[in-house]
Amino acid sequence: MSKVVTFGEVMMRLSPPENRRVRQSHQLEIFFGGTELNVASSLANFEMQVEQVSVVSNDFIGESAIAAMRHLGVGVAAVTKVDYPLGLYFLENGAGMRPSQISYNRLNAAFANIDPESINWVEILDGCTYLHWTGITPGISESAYKTLKDGLEIAQNKEITVTTDPSYRSNLWKYGKNGQEVLAELTGFSNIFIGGANEINEILKTDFENNPDGFIEASKELIVTFPSIKKVFNKVRTSFSASWQKIYGQAWTGTEYITTDELEISNVIDRIGTGDAFAAGIIYGLEHYDSQKTLEFANASCALKHTILGDNSLVCLEEILDVMQGSRNGRIKR
Amino acid sequence: MSKVVTFGEVMMRLSPPENRRVRQSHQLEIFFGGTELNVASSLANFEMQVEQVSVVSNDFIGESAIAAMRHLGVGVAAVTKVDYPLGLYFLENGAGMRPSQISYNRLNAAFANIDPESINWVEILDGCTYLHWTGITPGISESAYKTLKDGLEIAQNKEITVTTDPSYRSNLWKYGKNGQEVLAELTGFSNIFIGGANEINEILKTDFENNPDGFIEASKELIVTFPSIKKVFNKVRTSFSASWQKIYGQAWTGTEYITTDELEISNVIDRIGTGDAFAAGIIYGLEHYDSQKTLEFANASCALKHTILGDNSLVCLEEILDVMQGSRNGRIKR
Amino acid sequence: MSKVVTFGEVMMRLSPPENRRVRQSHQLEIFFGGTELNVASSLANFEMQVEQVSVVSNDFIGESAIAAMRHLGVGVAAVTKVDYPLGLYFLENGAGMRPSQISYNRLNAAFANIDPESINWVEILDGCTYLHWTGITPGISESAYKTLKDGLEIAQNKEITVTTDPSYRSNLWKYGKNGQEVLAELTGFSNIFIGGANEINEILKTDFENNPDGFIEASKELIVTFPSIKKVFNKVRTSFSASWQKIYGQAWTGTEYITTDELEISNVIDRIGTGDAFAAGIIYGLEHYDSQKTLEFANASCALKHTILGDNSLVCLEEILDVMQGSRNGRIKR
Amino acid sequence: MSKVVTFGEVMMRLSPPENRRVRQSHQLEIFFGGTELNVASSLANFEMQVEQVSVVSNDFIGESAIAAMRHLGVGVAAVTKVDYPLGLYFLENGAGMRPSQISYNRLNAAFANIDPESINWVEILDGCTYLHWTGITPGISESAYKTLKDGLEIAQNKEITVTTDPSYRSNLWKYGKNGQEVLAELTGFSNIFIGGANEINEILKTDFENNPDGFIEASKELIVTFPSIKKVFNKVRTSFSASWQKIYGQAWTGTEYITTDELEISNVIDRIGTGDAFAAGIIYGLEHYDSQKTLEFANASCALKHTILGDNSLVCLEEILDVMQGSRNGRIKR
Amino acid sequence: MSKVVTFGEVMMRLSPPENRRVRQSHQLEIFFGGTELNVASSLANFEMQVEQVSVVSNDFIGESAIAAMRHLGVGVAAVTKVDYPLGLYFLENGAGMRPSQISYNRLNAAFANIDPESINWVEILDGCTYLHWTGITPGISESAYKTLKDGLEIAQNKEITVTTDPSYRSNLWKYGKNGQEVLAELTGFSNIFIGGANEINEILKTDFENNPDGFIEASKELIVTFPSIKKVFNKVRTSFSASWQKIYGQAWTGTEYITTDELEISNVIDRIGTGDAFAAGIIYGLEHYDSQKTLEFANASCALKHTILGDNSLVCLEEILDVMQGSRNGRIKR
Amino acid sequence: MSKVVTFGEVMMRLSPPENRRVRQSHQLEIFFGGTELNVASSLANFEMQVEQVSVVSNDFIGESAIAAMRHLGVGVAAVTKVDYPLGLYFLENGAGMRPSQISYNRLNAAFANIDPESINWVEILDGCTYLHWTGITPGISESAYKTLKDGLEIAQNKEITVTTDPSYRSNLWKYGKNGQEVLAELTGFSNIFIGGANEINEILKTDFENNPDGFIEASKELIVTFPSIKKVFNKVRTSFSASWQKIYGQAWTGTEYITTDELEISNVIDRIGTGDAFAAGIIYGLEHYDSQKTLEFANASCALKHTILGDNSLVCLEEILDVMQGSRNGRIKR
Repeated sequence: MSKVVTFGEVMMRLSPPENRRVRQSHQLEIFFGGTELNVASSLANFEMQVEQVSVVSNDFIGESAIAAMRHLGVGVAAVTKVDYPLGLYFLENGAGMRPSQISYNRLNAAFANIDPESINWVEILDGCTYLHWTGITPGISESAYKTLKDGLEIAQNKEITVTTDPSYRSNLWKYGKNGQEVLAELTGFSNIFIGGANEINEILKTDFENNPDGFIEASKELIVTFPSIKKVFNKVRTSFSASWQKIYGQAWTGTEYITTDELEISNVIDRIGTGDAFAAGIIYGLEHYDSQKTLEFANASCALKHTILGDNSLVCLEEILDVMQGSRNGRIKR
Repeated sequence: MSKVVTFGEVMMRLSPPENRRVRQSHQLEIFFGGTELNVASSLANFEMQVEQVSVVSNDFIGESAIAAMRHLGVGVAAVTKVDYPLGLYFLENGAGMRPSQISYNRLNAAFANIDPESINWVEILDGCTYLHWTGITPGISESAYKTLKDGLEIAQNKEITVTTDPSYRSNLWKYGKNGQEVLAELTGFSNIFIGGANEINEILKTDFENNPDGFIEASKELIVTFPSIKKVFNKVRTSFSASWQKIYGQAWTGTEYITTDELEISNVIDRIGTGDAFAAGIIYGLEHYDSQKTLEFANASCALKHTILGDNSLVCLEEILDVMQGSRNGRIKR
Repeated sequence: MSKVVTFGEVMMRLSPPENRRVRQSHQLEIFFGGTELNVASSLANFEMQVEQVSVVSNDFIGESAIAAMRHLGVGVAAVTKVDYPLGLYFLENGAGMRPSQISYNRLNAAFANIDPESINWVEILDGCTYLHWTGITPGISESAYKTLKDGLEIAQNKEITVTTDPSYRSNLWKYGKNGQEVLAELTGFSNIFIGGANEINEILKTDFENNPDGFIEASKELIVTFPSIKKVFNKVRTSFSASWQKIYGQAWTGTEYITTDELEISNVIDRIGTGDAFAAGIIYGLEHYDSQKTLEFANASCALKHTILGDNSLVCLEEILDVMQGSRNGRIKR
Repeated sequence: MSKVVTFGEVMMRLSPPENRRVRQSHQLEIFFGGTELNVASSLANFEMQVEQVSVVSNDFIGESAIAAMRHLGVGVAAVTKVDYPLGLYFLENGAGMRPSQISYNRLNAAFANIDPESINWVEILDGCTYLHWTGITPGISESAYKTLKDGLEIAQNKEITVTTDPSYRSNLWKYGKNGQEVLAELTGFSNIFIGGANEINEILKTDFENNPDGFIEASKELIVTFPSIKKVFNKVRTSFSASWQKIYGQAWTGTEYITTDELEISNVIDRIGTGDAFAAGIIYGLEHYDSQKTLEFANASCALKHTILGDNSLVCLEEILDVMQGSRNGRIKR
Repeated sequence: MSKVVTFGEVMMRLSPPENRRVRQSHQLEIFFGGTELNVASSLANFEMQVEQVSVVSNDFIGESAIAAMRHLGVGVAAVTKVDYPLGLYFLENGAGMRPSQISYNRLNAAFANIDPESINWVEILDGCTYLHWTGITPGISESAYKTLKDGLEIAQNKEITVTTDPSYRSNLWKYGKNGQEVLAELTGFSNIFIGGANEINEILKTDFENNPDGFIEASKELIVTFPSIKKVFNKVRTSFSASWQKIYGQAWTGTEYITTDELEISNVIDRIGTGDAFAAGIIYGLEHYDSQKTLEFANASCALKHTILGDNSLVCLEEILDVMQGSRNGRIKR
Repeated sequence: MSKVVTFGEVMMRLSPPENRRVRQSHQLEIFFGGTELNVASSLANFEMQVEQVSVVSNDFIGESAIAAMRHLGVGVAAVTKVDYPLGLYFLENGAGMRPSQISYNRLNAAFANIDPESINWVEILDGCTYLHWTGITPGISESAYKTLKDGLEIAQNKEITVTTDPSYRSNLWKYGKNGQEVLAELTGFSNIFIGGANEINEILKTDFENNPDGFIEASKELIVTFPSIKKVFNKVRTSFSASWQKIYGQAWTGTEYITTDELEISNVIDRIGTGDAFAAGIIYGLEHYDSQKTLEFANASCALKHTILGDNSLVCLEEILDVMQGSRNGRIKR
């Protein structure tokens, strides 16, 4: 069985029940997420072997994070502990035209204080087929960036397929590095790019349009610039409101442009982690399908995540295959 | 006042709050349902006298089931207890394109172990005007089948109107009998058939199409085969997703085909028991209205059930009448 | 900073969680509302100084009401206590075609027993720019009516801008006065009328049609009858169901008819207090904007309230401005 | 089977979860109680037939109250509806040295507005063996007093055993009657007195001491004054704190003084309704036991109620018998 | 690191929140337990490697059980699935003199239908140091008994230390075997006996008294009868009420009788699984301590479990060591 | 009315419901506390005017903190915002011999980043009678220390009474200053010392014993060293377990040693903030009572806080006075 390794911060998400604002709530619901863990947990649901490299707090919160990872089926052998609090974020779930709001508490947290020396990448990547990283990690702290770069170098040597979802977040990158430069550098170690014209523009400092032609041109330019990149997969989202979305997949396979059906979610349960469910679908597809089916699988995975509360997509293979095969009317299964 | 008797299993439904999966929930919400109890409780809401014949566990769970029936206004004088656990089912509420899922624990439960000798049908049916049964009951166990057949024979002798919702469930019928044959046999004791072309095809082993013409032809054939059947009522559902449905009623009155307006529910609260709310509407209508108004009442009852959490339809007469009269915009009533 | 004074009853709202009926709930969620407090709390969110004149029960429930007002940022210096229970109401939240239902317990409560002598209007209105009243207050009891009239007279003398949302509620007015006459009398003390053709018809005993032309004609007639009225603002609601609404604003500025975009809410979280959010938007706009922008602000405020649980609109200025500027797709804000 | 009739107000109790104060809670838990319903529901648990005469609000809250009564197994045939809100009370659960606090909203509620003419006592008391009343009812309103007196007169004629728990509550009796006089008058219609020296002193305007001798003397004096009274039963409570109580029973049988073991509850779950559980135990005992066993049964019933959340004692016969027989160590029953 | 293997049923426990009865609750809290899993999860908390052999349902409930085991840190490689529902039990938490009550639904569940051929004991026990079994397992079904016996034979061959907590439960043993005979047979494969005079009497059909001398004599007799048994460890419980308990340990080491301090728990949070926490303490002690310290560790583990909600003891090593070293006053740790 | 100013961090406390561990909870309950806010909120309950100087995060969490302060009745005019997350802590509530555990996330939070220049002490302390500080604040960060020292100097000039609860916390003081030296320096600005021999030993580097004589000697030495100190008040706690405590007050008035009754809490609801309730009682007493009554008031305030969930003591004057006057048996107040 192929092994996937993800590297990233595990965060505690705290959100008031239903659509309450924090001001009007006495309770917060706990979810453990983080973009890479979301990918990892989806892969575990798809019955792939997956392990996450991370750092948590050395207290009962860190213990809870590790237990949550085990619950999700994600390997924790490479999770270490430090004497800093676990990163966390507060989420107020939006509705209709009111957007969800997030407030982070992560920049001095456990993961940001990772010691690159503490991670034995050679051992961790032993037997690994895929390594997944995102643009969040190198934006957190210099040591997170260094640790990631170490891992990517070793992955390159081991000929591991590196997948990346390198989106730039402006509320990170407080430690001095230039986000665009770092993301460009690290993209150079990667093989599968998950993103669209916007993400490519951020990295290449280009301004391709956000439409099919723009995506094709941007993808070609990306592959010219970073020849390690073989394929580009992207989801295209139409938002009517925080509660109503449409989604389809597009990809440049290196030789052709492919797309999927558009899937509609008229009552979003949770928007967080939908992009990660797409990324996980791509990785699963790389291992099992051709590009067209990979894209369809990822799109269905992404769409179904909108119906699941929390950061992690607790959707199983069979549910995705049903949607891929056209079963979308939600009839009760007994 | 007319008295209705229903016969069937009372089950505990356990479902995680909101749209959570069981895996991500520490709590389950309790509802007591079962298709016949759902019909009975609607009739009690409609202020008809109704009593359910059933068997529950001889423990504090069975006591809770009986208290729940009383709460709903359903008579419990004919509920007995045995030393088997109460049947139950787990429900994960779907959303959007993700279907609801049900897992049953009923086949060795209290109701399946009913002793046909323990039910005094003659006494129970004394003064009864309607007896309602569904295709679930005879599929549970041989003794459930036998008890039902005993009741139907006595009802026939007493000239009680027998209504039936005889849908075939493939996850039942484990005890050796052939579902199609049994349902055909028991339909022969019935007067009002609640179902459409699909249900008729199951019983007659025919293949009428699932459209108005098919429904008319199937109904005619059903009545030819089982002359005790006088009328056929059916609801026609269009599912856009687990959360978005449309519903209208169709009926063959023996002489003509009638239909209702289509009602739309764009944010389903609970799909379970909507068919039972339709059946209850039919029984109420048989007692109070002509066929056209009966069908409209049942359709409104069914549509409103989609807005109620749980298995039972806690909708009162006035609310149904309002919807029948065109009040569907949900304005606040003060 | 301009100071706004509101006068009205503070009520405890008790509603079962989610869409449950009271019959099927063991818990009720507490919100403190009342139409004038809803206006006041919105204004506090908009960072205006606002104080509510009210009377609460002299027990731990009254204490809770006062603490809730403070929490909302509404001044409580003019809240007194009497030995009657706090008014309250039960709400069953509707869904789809099932309307929300309200049952009141207020007519012998603390506010109804207000002593007009106990309110020192001269002091309270000192430094006040706006006084807001609604048609609820004079319908509760004779002493509430008298207290309000006292306040309006003093406001008139002080040249305070009086805003009113004078809708007639048929379940009030039990104490002997004629609602239409009283509302007409008190409208004569007011400067800004928040309502449409229906509300004007109630007061003038006219029958203008509920369309743009009717609104314009009604507004003109209102201003002729009550020359103190300078402008008329109204929201126009289209209800598809309890869960799906559209809303736009219309106004007669004294010289022209203006309107706004229509905003759509396809999954209403809470319908209560949406009119109050509109009224608060008008008051905020009077202080900061011209009539067109005032109407747009009020309409966005009203639309956003549909996404907030409870009676009070916990929407901040920035969120309204975003919607006014066209940002309505609910993208996550990090 | 003997039938018991109780007469009294059904109230909604609203209390914050656990030991929270209302100020710090967004939720209230619903229980339906009232001293007479508490007695009735205990008797239903003891498998006696019991019916309560009452009046509820004509809305969804009144419907909920009726459903709750049915759930408890109490007959509702003699419950009527009026257009006043249901009485309710708020409870803040105490702990340790902090007392529980109650705030009532009942004096203008449905039951207070009972119409004596609307109650057909002759029919209701047909076949009745016991009629139970408490000192709360005649303190609520003049019409409640009159209705009760009507019932007692008819009960006297029918030679029904009348039991009473006539404690005086100073926060009632606002309608003009003198509580002491009324209680004395109505005690004259009663046969079993449930109370001690304090309660007797209230009625006789005496000052017997609150100790065994005082109880015996008071009981003798009571029986001399009201020869209809045959026996006096009382529970003696020692409160260490809101959470820690001891309880034993004492009685004057007309000829001798008897007592029970003292039972200790070191972690009270709910104090409300414990006296009612004692009263119910007495009524059950009158029907089934001699005075000594009656007193022991009532004391065990009372002690066990301290372990049950809410107003109603959901304790079954077997649990009381176990405690009577000395099983008090709380071993798990599988 | 030593590996422990446990074998037994994983059950879903469903209990109403706080001290509610099921009748008065709309919600049940989910815990996954079962005596052997409770032992296993404690050992995982103590940082031992532990794996449970079990069978779960082939549905989303079985998946939830497996995820819960992973969360607890218990290995699931030897958990298989069958098409029967997961065993479950309902618990009503007692308080004071009211006992907790349990109702089981397990005898036709997944584990009872285990196929002995499906368990590869040779592979599972590879590298295993301890195998733990209890008297529950062979009482469930014949196939459970056979599977256990297979495992014990192989463990004997591999010289694995077999620990047993062989208590007899009268509500099991419905499949035809004699409980006493089976327990005696299987005790013959075991090395460490966790139980006291009562448990020994059940197996040997003796009647040693339940006091220190009786324990010593019984232990000697047990070892004479089953020479494989080397030591006997027992906890001695004094129950004042369901909420107040005292506990101490006693052991016969083969050569001497040893005991521990008595620990008092005046407000029990959860009684379930306290014996399992004792057994886990013994196994941990066997690996790390002498008999005296083993007994003290197990006693502290048992006492601390009374403060943890649910079946599993979420107590870590450090907390037990603190209690062993005399820190029992519960001062806050910051 | 005397005005009190407190200065300190406002923290969000997150604790799982009941006695759950975080690992086994999906929800956390929110309380806003911090030792100084706890004092301030008690004083507001005692109807004193109180304002807290603090810094919160510039996001919806900071807004929630401010709203919570207003809810408590604490003035927020001197609360500012910075772009750092709000400090928070996780609490696992202990029970019995299992201690509560706290994990902090505060050292890089908003308050730690206070800018001393941003606080206008002269204005804030205008009209102030008491300034309260604790040993937490100067341990958080250098800027917190500096800001406090600025305030104390100005208070000294204004002859404001400075009260202090200067306990040393070893998990603070990470920024380079020596805790003992700083606390000694700041004690020199203070007039009322709330602490016992342990706290004095920490400051004076002495080793007085923790008994009445030791307290007297330590107090005398403290006053000799810091002549600004006039009186020393202390609470003496005996912990049987996390759930069972006894408490009494001792004081050195400068001339005599006084004590109070010992109050017992056999079922602690919440231990957090009990010392703060004592401190608040002292401040209230200083304003209203002599030293003996001050100590009794503070001791009763402290004891009652053990019965209140959360950090803040929601106890009102009347409840404390009742306990002072000997009413400790927790009888229901209607």
